[in-house]
Amino acid sequence: MTSTLITNIGELVTNDPAMGDGSFLGVAHDAALVIEDEHVAWIGPASKAPPTDAREDIGGRAVVPGFVDSHTHLVFAGERSAEFAARMAGERYTGGGIMTTVTATRAASDTALRVHTAHLAAEMLASGTTTIEIKSGYGLTVADELRLLRIAGEFTPETTFMGAHVVPLEFANDRDGYLDLVCGEMLATCSPYARWIDVFCDTGAFSAEETRRVLAAGIEAGLLPRLHGNQIQHGPGVQIAVEFGAASVDHCTHLDDSDIEALAASDTVATLLPGADFSTRSPYPDARRLLDAGVTVALATDCNPGSSFVTSIPLCIALAVREMQMTPAEALHAATAGGAAALRREGIGHLSVGARADIVVLEATTFVHLAYRPAAPIVARAWRGGATSPPQ
Amino acid sequence: MTSTLITNIGELVTNDPAMGDGSFLGVAHDAALVIEDEHVAWIGPASKAPPTDAREDIGGRAVVPGFVDSHTHLVFAGERSAEFAARMAGERYTGGGIMTTVTATRAASDTALRVHTAHLAAEMLASGTTTIEIKSGYGLTVADELRLLRIAGEFTPETTFMGAHVVPLEFANDRDGYLDLVCGEMLATCSPYARWIDVFCDTGAFSAEETRRVLAAGIEAGLLPRLHGNQIQHGPGVQIAVEFGAASVDHCTHLDDSDIEALAASDTVATLLPGADFSTRSPYPDARRLLDAGVTVALATDCNPGSSFVTSIPLCIALAVREMQMTPAEALHAATAGGAAALRREGIGHLSVGARADIVVLEATTFVHLAYRPAAPIVARAWRGGATSPPQ
Repeated sequence: MTSTLITNIGELVTNDPAMGDGSFLGVAHDAALVIEDEHVAWIGPASKAPPTDAREDIGGRAVVPGFVDSHTHLVFAGERSAEFAARMAGERYTGGGIMTTVTATRAASDTALRVHTAHLAAEMLASGTTTIEIKSGYGLTVADELRLLRIAGEFTPETTFMGAHVVPLEFANDRDGYLDLVCGEMLATCSPYARWIDVFCDTGAFSAEETRRVLAAGIEAGLLPRLHGNQIQHGPGVQIAVEFGAASVDHCTHLDDSDIEALAASDTVATLLPGADFSTRSPYPDARRLLDAGVTVALATDCNPGSSFVTSIPLCIALAVREMQMTPAEALHAATAGGAAALRREGIGHLSVGARADIVVLEATTFVHLAYRPAAPIVARAWRGGATSPPQ
Repeated sequence: MTSTLITNIGELVTNDPAMGDGSFLGVAHDAALVIEDEHVAWIGPASKAPPTDAREDIGGRAVVPGFVDSHTHLVFAGERSAEFAARMAGERYTGGGIMTTVTATRAASDTALRVHTAHLAAEMLASGTTTIEIKSGYGLTVADELRLLRIAGEFTPETTFMGAHVVPLEFANDRDGYLDLVCGEMLATCSPYARWIDVFCDTGAFSAEETRRVLAAGIEAGLLPRLHGNQIQHGPGVQIAVEFGAASVDHCTHLDDSDIEALAASDTVATLLPGADFSTRSPYPDARRLLDAGVTVALATDCNPGSSFVTSIPLCIALAVREMQMTPAEALHAATAGGAAALRREGIGHLSVGARADIVVLEATTFVHLAYRPAAPIVARAWRGGATSPPQ
């Protein structure tokens, strides 16, 4: 067991209201922390720090918990910049381009997918993300969905089976046949490699009835539910997520009063994906209303080549502040503790004794710079599970 | 003299309509280029490349001209994240916080200013910017304005005297006295260290009459005019810029028909600063209308600690596409050739034989990724004046 003292922290965000200033961010000054192996072993005033094997002086910089990116589609091949440019010239986002990526992904070798995913995961870590969720959904055959989940599992335990991403072209005239496959052989094959079941419940994707069927089958197979909902239009996604006790319903762009009420009365997190709203020129969700109603909000990238080729949680924080009227503190909390809640994880998303040592040092004296300096190289260094990683 | 062949370029943006696809971006495929010392010595089909001393295979990546950031306030001390957070919570931007930075800057040592400027300039180069303009305006005494311009001159020949940034507190009851100083001793002392004269012509800053007085004095002292105008409200800035033959009028958020007509009939560039609109939650300028009227548009960061702590031209490009309906091609052109026009520079902002070898290699196969992958580490490497710089 080796221990490292992290000291000379200008501002320490713990997400522990018992710490520091007593706010939900639990901001402490003149604090230090000790990493022992993978975990945080001690936090307190720098002047009372215990002896350790090593010592890291981080020069008065701010320290925040590692970001938890609870919504990504990271295993894919190809890119869709031409579709992006067409959309920026006026075409609407319908989700119809997903099959482009399915075709490219099916054609890619395991090695190509692994190398590409590793590249994006490294980008994410360099911008402060220490936990990622990864969905399948660009395979849409039994063999390809399995392949994507096995590769995803090399990068994270938070793997999500999303055979119900779109109905693939070869089943265009047989939706029920595809759903039989998803809920039958595909689920049976994939469920050992996934923690979560997810469905794209939206206009042009899957209906309420189809969504319920897939979620029920996934739960029966031992998976935990989460949902894409209310992105493209208002629909039943949020209500179904709450009905099934989903950990999270993601996008939430189009909500009505009853959706907000249902979320507020539930344990379901509303995961907002401003990178997707940015990259599809869509309206941003009404984060203010969700927060004011007491809903737990998470921020994630939705990283995918169609609607949000974004790896940077700091960009999501900046967009949440600029476009969704979240305060910098609320946005940081959503990208850390919120993401952890969306993944039902206790030991990440905060810095407390016993938490995983996922620690991000900012090239700044305060976390506010995450929004104040959009697109700057704001992450000086990071530890993930106590292991240090080089700066960007 | 040493020569280097840059080859295996996936897509080469030259900004030379005589090259490649004949568009204003002059996009060539299967092209290569040769750097000799500081300049581009040859461009053509890779198969016809001449022999060179060295050879760089850039692996099919896209190459674009180095970005020209024609509007920054890079020499300053301190930060204003608290003011930013207050603004995001609803306070309006009035420019009133400039004195906070003036106080911090006056108190900073030359060395502290130099180190901070170097840090930001390195950030800019790492994100692809190979030419920067730097304004004074956080000194507002003869000695401090001189100091800022001398430090700015260590980083760029594009130095701008901007004593008329705000009226400093000590002259609050004597505006005319301050303008006498700016146009008298301050200008006389500073003009040998500046190429440009600039005035903040806006509500709460300097009036039309004051602006004309300062510009006329600057021109008399041998400086070339440029202007901040029409940022906070509609005002006379654009018309005065055109009247004085300014190289550029910057911000242009609030324009009327006669402003657009005046710009279209002039050589004055409209420099748009979407980082400032982002960071002050202001409306974005109507770039579409300017472009459609035939106005030359530039994109720049406005990097400063109050209204736009942004160093990333790629972010400005992404915002121009998302928020200002510029195409990715128009946005890239504005951030390269547009910036060069705003600085009246012939030898930068394009890649042609004889141009300065300011070359940016993207971590992408096409320049569209500058908008498609917001806040990604999109710059793989850069050459500035033929000298290579390490990646980010």
